[in-house]
Amino acid sequence: MVVRTSDRGQSSPLGLHRVIEPAGVLPQAARRLDPDPAMWPDEVLVSVERLNLDAASFRQLREANDGDPAKMRAAVLGIVADRGKMQNPVTGSGGMLTGVVSEAGPDSVLGLKPGDRIATLVSLSLTPLVITDDLASWDGTSEQVPCAGHAILFGRSIAAVLPDDLPVPLSLAVMDVCGAPALTHRVVSQAGLVNPKGPVVAILGAAGKSGSLSAAAARQAGASLVIGVVPHEREAAALREALGADGSTGLADQIVIADATDPVGVSAAVEAAGGPADVTVVCVDVPGCEGGAILSTAQGGTVIFFSMATSFTAAALGAEGVAADVTMLVGNGYTPGHAQLAIDLIRTNPGVRQIFDSRTTGE
Amino acid sequence: MVVRTSDRGQSSPLGLHRVIEPAGVLPQAARRLDPDPAMWPDEVLVSVERLNLDAASFRQLREANDGDPAKMRAAVLGIVADRGKMQNPVTGSGGMLTGVVSEAGPDSVLGLKPGDRIATLVSLSLTPLVITDDLASWDGTSEQVPCAGHAILFGRSIAAVLPDDLPVPLSLAVMDVCGAPALTHRVVSQAGLVNPKGPVVAILGAAGKSGSLSAAAARQAGASLVIGVVPHEREAAALREALGADGSTGLADQIVIADATDPVGVSAAVEAAGGPADVTVVCVDVPGCEGGAILSTAQGGTVIFFSMATSFTAAALGAEGVAADVTMLVGNGYTPGHAQLAIDLIRTNPGVRQIFDSRTTGE
Repeated sequence: MVVRTSDRGQSSPLGLHRVIEPAGVLPQAARRLDPDPAMWPDEVLVSVERLNLDAASFRQLREANDGDPAKMRAAVLGIVADRGKMQNPVTGSGGMLTGVVSEAGPDSVLGLKPGDRIATLVSLSLTPLVITDDLASWDGTSEQVPCAGHAILFGRSIAAVLPDDLPVPLSLAVMDVCGAPALTHRVVSQAGLVNPKGPVVAILGAAGKSGSLSAAAARQAGASLVIGVVPHEREAAALREALGADGSTGLADQIVIADATDPVGVSAAVEAAGGPADVTVVCVDVPGCEGGAILSTAQGGTVIFFSMATSFTAAALGAEGVAADVTMLVGNGYTPGHAQLAIDLIRTNPGVRQIFDSRTTGE
Repeated sequence: MVVRTSDRGQSSPLGLHRVIEPAGVLPQAARRLDPDPAMWPDEVLVSVERLNLDAASFRQLREANDGDPAKMRAAVLGIVADRGKMQNPVTGSGGMLTGVVSEAGPDSVLGLKPGDRIATLVSLSLTPLVITDDLASWDGTSEQVPCAGHAILFGRSIAAVLPDDLPVPLSLAVMDVCGAPALTHRVVSQAGLVNPKGPVVAILGAAGKSGSLSAAAARQAGASLVIGVVPHEREAAALREALGADGSTGLADQIVIADATDPVGVSAAVEAAGGPADVTVVCVDVPGCEGGAILSTAQGGTVIFFSMATSFTAAALGAEGVAADVTMLVGNGYTPGHAQLAIDLIRTNPGVRQIFDSRTTGE
C-alpha cells in the first residue's frame, strides 16, 4: 500500500483532496476527480466487481447510443477516463458499486478490512474510479455492469458489507432504498414516546420496495396500525399476501386502494381505514403526492417524503394552503445503521422478501 | 347574511364545496371557484381593500403587458372573472389580501368578527374573489393593488387581524414570512430540551426579512449562540447595527460573511464562528444552498429549509453524499400562532424592525 501524507497535503473526510477541478467544490460537484490508487491514510481501496448505474443514467446512455453495446461501453469508459468517476454528465447521476476491499488505510473509520465484499452506499457521482477491463463483459442490456478496476472510499463515505446469506442482487436492491425504513423506524419510535399506544402509520406505495420495508420498519418500531395505500388491486393482492414478521399478520393491517395524487380521495380512504395518520410515509415515485400525504396526516403529525419526485414548493405551500400543522421531512438517504436495519428486516419479514423477489426477478 | 345549507349541500373546511371545476380537486388546484357572496355557516365574508400579488405573478403580468396599467388591470380582472380567484395561470401563484370582515358565519372557528381588519395568510390562489371597482385605483407600478370587492374564507383558512400599532405594509411584510420564525422557535425550543445549555443556531441569510425574524425567534427560544451568515459586508453592517430585544446585544452573536452556495466555504466559516450548528435555518432565496447548510450542521442536528429555491433532491442526495445524519425539514408556512409570534418579535426587537423598515421603504 502506498500511503500519501506529506507529498500532497492532508486528506479531507469529504474527499476534497481528490478534487482536481474546479478547486474547492465537493467531489459530487467536481468535473474531475483524482482516482490515483495511492491512498491517503483514512481511505479505503476497493477492487471493483460491478457498477450499478442508476436508472436515469442507464436510460440516457442506452438512448443516446441507440442501445449499441460497443457505443455504450465506449461512452462509460470515456466518462470515467475523463472525470475520474462515473457521473453521467447529462443526468448528473451515478449509481453504486460492489467490490472487494483491497486495503483499508490505518486511519479509516469505516470498519472495513481486506477481503470484505461490499456495496458503496454513496453515489458513484462522487467516488474516484478507474476501469481496467474495457467493460468487456458488459453487453449493455442491464444497468448492472460487470467491471474490473479500483475505487476509493473517503473517510466519511458509506459502505456496507454484503451479507453471505442473501443473493447479491437482493442485497443491492435492499441497500438502494435502506434510508427509507431507517428514517421511518426512527420517526415512528419517536412518535411512540409521546403516544405510548403506538402511532398510526400510513405508507403511500406500500407494495413497493421502499414502501414494504418502511411498513415492516413501522411495525417493528411500535406502530399501532399500519395502513398500506396502493394504486390498484394487483398491488393490493401482493400486499395482502405478504406475511409479517410473525408469519401470520400481514405487512399492513389495512389495505386501501387510492390514487395518491388525489388529495381528497387518498385522505378519505386513509381516514376510513383508521386514520388520519400520525406518521405518513411517501414512497410513490410520481409527482403530485404532497397534498394527499399532508391531508392524510393528523395535526401535529409527520410526513416523510422519500420520493425523488417530491416538489419542495408543493409540500411547503400545500401544507400552508390547508392550515396543516404537520412536520415535513426530506427523506435523508443516510441514517446510521440503515443498511443493517434493512437487511435484518428482509431476513425476518417473509412478506418483504416476497415483494423484493417478485420485483428483482428479471431486472 | 344569506347562509346556505340545504340548497347546495354541506360545506367542507377545505373549501371543496366552492370548487366548480374540475370536480373533486382542492381549491388551489381548481380551474374555477364559486365566489358567490352567499355564505355557508362556517365561512367568513371579507370586504377586500387590497390585493398583494406575489412577486412572480406581478413580474409576469407586468412583462406580458409591457407595463401598460390598463392592460395589467384588464389581465387581473379577466383572471378573477374567469377563475373566481386571483391565480395567475402562468405562474400558478397568488398572493394575499387585506380587507375588513363583513360577516362571520355562525360555525366559523377563525375567531373573526365584523369590522376586524385582517390579512389572509392562505394564498389568493385558493381564495374565492370578486372585484367590483375595475381596479380603477391601481396604476400597475406595484404588486400592492387597491381593490374593492369581496372574498370568502373557508372553515380551515388562515387569517390574522392586523395590529393597530404597526403600519399595514410592515404587518403584511412580517406576516408574509411569519412561518419561518414560528418553526424556528419550535425547533430550537425542542433542541433545547435535550441540550439545556441551549443549541447553537446558524441562520443563512440572517439580514433578510425571514432571516432576521428567525434569528430573533432562535434567541427567544433559548439558543446559546446565534451565528448570522450574510453574503457581503453591506449586510454584515446591517446585521451588526441591528439591536436585540434587550437593546444591547445584536440579533446575531457572530456574523460571518460567506457564500451560502459554497458548501466548504460556508461550513468552515460557521465552524470558525462557534459551529457546527445544532439547528441551521436557510433563508437565502438562491438555488444551491443545500450542501452548505448540511455541512454547517452537527451530526444529529436539524436543517430547516425556508427558501422556495430549495431542491428536494439536492437536499436528500446531498446529505447522503456526505453521510450527514441531519433531520431536514420542509419549511411549512403554517404553525399555529405564527402571525402573532412574528408580530410580537418585531414589536420587541428594534433591530428586526430596523431591517424591515429599510427593506419595505420604497417597495
